[in-house]
Order: sequence, then C-alpha cells, then structure tokens
Amino acid sequence: MEKCKISKSSLGRIPYYLDYIDSLPDEIQNISATRIAKELGFGEIQVRKDLALISKEGKPKVGYDRFALKDSLNAFLSNQNGNAIIVGAGKLGKALLDYSGFETYGTRVLAAFDNNLDEEITLQSGKSIFPVNQMKEFCELHNVNIGIIATPSQSAQAVLNKLYECNIKLIWCFAPCRLYKPADVIIQYENLALSLAHLNFQSNQ
Amino acid sequence: MEKCKISKSSLGRIPYYLDYIDSLPDEIQNISATRIAKELGFGEIQVRKDLALISKEGKPKVGYDRFALKDSLNAFLSNQNGNAIIVGAGKLGKALLDYSGFETYGTRVLAAFDNNLDEEITLQSGKSIFPVNQMKEFCELHNVNIGIIATPSQSAQAVLNKLYECNIKLIWCFAPCRLYKPADVIIQYENLALSLAHLNFQSNQ
Repeated sequence: MEKCKISKSSLGRIPYYLDYIDSLPDEIQNISATRIAKELGFGEIQVRKDLALISKEGKPKVGYDRFALKDSLNAFLSNQNGNAIIVGAGKLGKALLDYSGFETYGTRVLAAFDNNLDEEITLQSGKSIFPVNQMKEFCELHNVNIGIIATPSQSAQAVLNKLYECNIKLIWCFAPCRLYKPADVIIQYENLALSLAHLNFQSNQ
Repeated sequence: MEKCKISKSSLGRIPYYLDYIDSLPDEIQNISATRIAKELGFGEIQVRKDLALISKEGKPKVGYDRFALKDSLNAFLSNQNGNAIIVGAGKLGKALLDYSGFETYGTRVLAAFDNNLDEEITLQSGKSIFPVNQMKEFCELHNVNIGIIATPSQSAQAVLNKLYECNIKLIWCFAPCRLYKPADVIIQYENLALSLAHLNFQSNQ
C-alpha cells in the first residue's frame, strides 16, 4: 500500500473505528458508515470519506464487512513504516522514548541519542540510548526516516544538520526555536509552552 | 489587562518579537512593523495585526517605540495569569513539570499530583509532587485554573472529574482518549502519537 494523502483529523479517527469494530457483538457481520458515525459521534460525511479512502469494499445498503474493514484499517496504519529516533535524552527525550502509544499509528520510536554519553544505556522498556556518534550507522541499518529533536534550542540547528547527513528529512522539533532547513526537509514544530498558553487564552473567548 | 482573543499563531510570534527587539543596536529607538516582518520573515499584514492587538502606541511613518512595545508585549504575556497543575507523575508528567519553557508565555506549571504517593516529593528543580488527596486544597490556595492530564487513558475521565471538583475548567489532556465533560469545560487534546504519525504521512504529499 502506498502512503496516501490523509488529514490529521482523519488519521486520528482510525483508532476509534478500530476500537468500535472490536466492541461489536460477534453476530454482527456488516457495519455502515452511518452507524459508525452515529455511535462515535462523528459527522457521517467525514466517516464516509475516511472509510472510502482506506477501503474500497463498502457496498451500498450493506456497508462494510467488519473483518475486512478492520484488516484494511490496520494495514493502512502499519504499512506506513515510520521509524524514528530521538536526539537528546533529557527528561523529555526519555519520556518520549518510553511512551508506548506511538505504535498505535504504525510509527516506531527505536532509540535515542545523546551527546553526553560514552556508551549505550538500555532503559527498563528495553529501548536504548546511544552516543551520538553511532547515529549515522544506526539510521542506515534501521531505515530511520524521522528525527525527533528533544535538545535545548541552542543545539537544535546542529542536530537538524546531523540528521540531514543521516538522510533524515522528516523532523519533529520540541525545541522552541525556528530552524533553517534544506528544501526537501519537512519540520513539524511541537511547542508545548505555546499550546499551554493558548489553552489559557481560550478561557475568556 | 483583560485576556483578549488571540490566535495560536499570533501568540507564537510574540517571543520572536521580543527577541528581535532585544537584538537591536542601542541607538535604534523606533521600529516599524514592516521592518520586523522583513527581519523575521513573517508576513507584514500579520505583524501589523499582532502588534495592533497588543499595543495602541504605533504611529504612522514612525512605528513603535522599542521600549514601550517591549513592555506591552511582556505585559500581554505576563498578565494572563495561568496557573497549571499536572495530574500523573510518570515520566511524561515529570518531564512536563521540569520543563522550564512554559513561563515564556506567562503560564506557570506549579506542581504535580500522583495517586501512588503518600507524601510530598520535591524534585531537583524545586517543584513538588503531592499525593492526589492534597489537590483540592492546593488548587484553592494557588488559584489554579488549568489541569494537565498525564495519566494513562483509563484514569483520565476520573482525573477530569476530580479537576472539575477543584473548579478547574481548562484541561490539557495527553492521554490518547476522548473524555465526557461539562459544558463549561474546555479540553485541548495533545495526541503526540498522532502528531508523529501525521508527520510520517506527510513525506509522500
């Protein structure tokens, strides 16, 4: 399956569709987009579009075979083959490395790398933190395509440059800064401080 | 200063305006929105609107007095009086508690609360984690208006209910779930797994 265009909100609904299918009684074989939309409180048009994007098996008046739909949804997520590493193994980097929820959407966080380290450390979760000089070899070996920057702002540009040398062009940046990037790099900034502040501002709106 | 409507992107530009003003040579007294936009690579209309929202002191052809503008920007951030607590002091909760960047936008994360705790623990940063039964008293004493849910999904609803009992109506939820809420509660979900997956999906778009 090729990667295809999907909005963040559609992607976010997939785990709810999977949970809902799993919650159905055994005797139910077919489900309709209308029913799913109603049960989950989503818009019917949204659900229809989401499912049509992921499966071609829906039939008018019958809906989807529940098992075929479940397989399609799972295949959609797991075929994306995202392999990520974290750079910067402070508290945030370690928390992200240990977070088990990432694989819900078919993306694996494999390991972290840190400057202040002479040899590999293995965490309770079984995942490792390596010295940063082992990064290039690791990325080639494990087909890493995403780099997560969890360093302080002042190191973030150097980290991005290093990730690019490792042929990584998708960057998720937790450092509150703006980075210069080659044209073929996509950076997604995750500014937690800004998110919290914006929530606070909403209270009076 | 009252809280006022501001978009997340406008709010996000304020720290850049402040950094830019600080970086100006001493002899520069006035700055224009045009110049700021050009130097920071933002759209001129955006910058004009942002500054007009925060300061009424801009003059045609002269621009803003740099010190007055800096004061207005700082006052805008610091007058929002956001006081947050974290519920759930696992790795993510602790990482958030120790993250020093939140105050950039005038919002303080004061303490964390956890179920598995009999007495207060103080972290290196000086911030504390308390048993959850001390939450209500703490919130009243410190005027807490934001609750950050950093527990597993299965506890999140109970935590939201408890926060509401503490009169907290702004919720920032890191648990990957959907919560039922009273009409006067605002929930902002932070689904890190979804953000990472979406970045991965973007590579083919």
